Amino acid sequence: MKINENYLKLEESYLFSTIAHKVAAYQKANPQKKIIRMGIGDVTLPLCPAVVTAMRDAAAEMGRKESFHGYGPEQGYPFLKEAVQHYYFSRNIKLDEHEIFISDGAKSDVGNILDILSADNTVLIPNPVYPVYVDTNLMAGRKIVYMDANRENGFLPLPDDRVEADIIYLCSPNNPTGAVYSKEQLQKWVDYALSRNALILFDAAYEAFVKDSALPRSIYEIDGAKRCAIEFCSLSKTAGFTGTRCGYTIVPEALEFDGVKLNKLWLRRQTTKFNGVPYVIQRAAAAAFSEVGQKQIRENLQYYADNARIMTGAMKETGLWFTGGENSPYIWMQCPNGMGSWEFFDLLLNELNVVGTPGEGFGENGKGYFRLTAFGDRQDTAEAMNRLTDYLK
Amino acid sequence: MKINENYLKLEESYLFSTIAHKVAAYQKANPQKKIIRMGIGDVTLPLCPAVVTAMRDAAAEMGRKESFHGYGPEQGYPFLKEAVQHYYFSRNIKLDEHEIFISDGAKSDVGNILDILSADNTVLIPNPVYPVYVDTNLMAGRKIVYMDANRENGFLPLPDDRVEADIIYLCSPNNPTGAVYSKEQLQKWVDYALSRNALILFDAAYEAFVKDSALPRSIYEIDGAKRCAIEFCSLSKTAGFTGTRCGYTIVPEALEFDGVKLNKLWLRRQTTKFNGVPYVIQRAAAAAFSEVGQKQIRENLQYYADNARIMTGAMKETGLWFTGGENSPYIWMQCPNGMGSWEFFDLLLNELNVVGTPGEGFGENGKGYFRLTAFGDRQDTAEAMNRLTDYLK
Repeated sequence: MKINENYLKLEESYLFSTIAHKVAAYQKANPQKKIIRMGIGDVTLPLCPAVVTAMRDAAAEMGRKESFHGYGPEQGYPFLKEAVQHYYFSRNIKLDEHEIFISDGAKSDVGNILDILSADNTVLIPNPVYPVYVDTNLMAGRKIVYMDANRENGFLPLPDDRVEADIIYLCSPNNPTGAVYSKEQLQKWVDYALSRNALILFDAAYEAFVKDSALPRSIYEIDGAKRCAIEFCSLSKTAGFTGTRCGYTIVPEALEFDGVKLNKLWLRRQTTKFNGVPYVIQRAAAAAFSEVGQKQIRENLQYYADNARIMTGAMKETGLWFTGGENSPYIWMQCPNGMGSWEFFDLLLNELNVVGTPGEGFGENGKGYFRLTAFGDRQDTAEAMNRLTDYLK
Repeated sequence: MKINENYLKLEESYLFSTIAHKVAAYQKANPQKKIIRMGIGDVTLPLCPAVVTAMRDAAAEMGRKESFHGYGPEQGYPFLKEAVQHYYFSRNIKLDEHEIFISDGAKSDVGNILDILSADNTVLIPNPVYPVYVDTNLMAGRKIVYMDANRENGFLPLPDDRVEADIIYLCSPNNPTGAVYSKEQLQKWVDYALSRNALILFDAAYEAFVKDSALPRSIYEIDGAKRCAIEFCSLSKTAGFTGTRCGYTIVPEALEFDGVKLNKLWLRRQTTKFNGVPYVIQRAAAAAFSEVGQKQIRENLQYYADNARIMTGAMKETGLWFTGGENSPYIWMQCPNGMGSWEFFDLLLNELNVVGTPGEGFGENGKGYFRLTAFGDRQDTAEAMNRLTDYLK
């Protein structure tokens, strides 16, 4: 029996374990200090009442024979697919119900979608990047080409006609940089993909944080995108579902390569290797899309947006260069005084008792940058920013 | 962009859609007839009270900031892994907590495990078989060799030294045949695997239906199995979780090929392409393993076992050859009078208004056989068996 040797090429990521180790060591040496954590991209506000009620009601339903649900459709219940369809339609994007696949989160689908694509494709990935895009392709032995995201292009790289690529990863609003593509910029990507018969994998997990109505929240706002793009979305950040697990993936009917529809292949993949999202979770997710659910969710999103505004305010005060924060829960800042990412991490931890994420953990181009998240407590966020601005004065 | 062309080699399965079509047509033509369905392997009893209560409590927890759970460990919460560990330990099988991976069901893991194994391996699969084993390997382009399960070997094929195989699928109690391997038979498989450095993928999804204490419920009851076998298990049939989605996969620390531990590779796969089972579902699953949960679950299992006893009683009365039913929720019967699977299907539907599954839907060796399931209603099951025995008299 032979293992998949591509796994041996994966680099071990010690980013978050190194951070945890350093924080624990500092806290042990300084038990009286209050450390403010702005490193991990996890939500902190609870599920909204409409979601909790729906989940509890669905649990009760499952306890009665007459309303019990066994196996559901692998691609999701119609009631939830219709809710997603309506959510898109409210933004003038028309989807067919069978173009919507309910999943247990964007991470699973971003990885699993590669099942239906040949290992021979060349993949174009921005740097810095969410590491899952890289690792899932290394596991299949695909050739990866990187594109530079940097201060010069505002961490929003555009197509380079000299680069050959079959599969292109785009994430907007971006994790880790918080940068958001404009419609004109995304149009360039769609045109590039269509001209080379390439596929865009568009990660829209942070779409709900876009406040500027001129900015696209879905790739399907762009002409031609249904012929070249799959979109992944999630309730993780939108509705606090990081521990509840529900997302959705759009595979348009028009998406066809060599006469084969990707929608059909993905349906085959999901019906063979997946058994759907739990009924109670789908009911909870549907509640998040209801009128009352949307209202409650928006209050939570506003809380995080207000945190982000405090953070961008502090950034402007310090004069440090940054992206994100306005239409994204992430702030991507250049470290002060030419410091390296880890150097700045140590300074923040030891001097200000604030934890963030060194940018180089997301790739070479993250060197000298730093990620802070807006998912924390209001008072802690304000306190951390005060410490930072005071220190840098 | 090139698709994964292996998908084009997959055969479309029309088994269950053909059945649904035939049943609908009959019902339309005969609206007054009551059709009894014994075809689909889905449970019908609701979740037990302990599970429902745990799920509702967990939902409430998620609605309060101080008890909210965001991202959990991809491989499952310790409280659930400990419950699984205890469940195995009660049967004298000692597992380390990190050998246990919580999943969203056996189907996902049986398919996804192939990610960590080379596409160059030759796979040995019994015929008839649960189609997922076949399709997931075709998707990766692996060579498949079939082994005959038939009346002569009681639908329990044993190793053939002339056959070369790297990966071996075993399912006991078996779906679709209900046949159960003895310890001596499984020992032969473990010895064969160890002698050729092969890997056994052991599907134990129906272990809870084993009543005969001499029969193995886990491959790890067999000497040497931890060095050659991964075990997949699920709460789907055990605790009525088909629509609730929780299972567990055991990857022993001792499982090593070419110096690489599969446990480490699987952890890497899961942390990269999976984000864990929802917190509320893990709490519900843990309740299924609690003392009160186990008691309630056993009542449901007994209900299905009593259905199966009615069915095996009827089989004996008819004198038809069959396997299963005693330690399994499936009865695998030879069709009467040399009939073909579909011929018998039509007869059952049109004459007796009973629906089952034609054996040939599970492979060539299922021709002339038929699967009935014990997951139905008590009265319906008894009524269907009366119709059958009366008809065959």
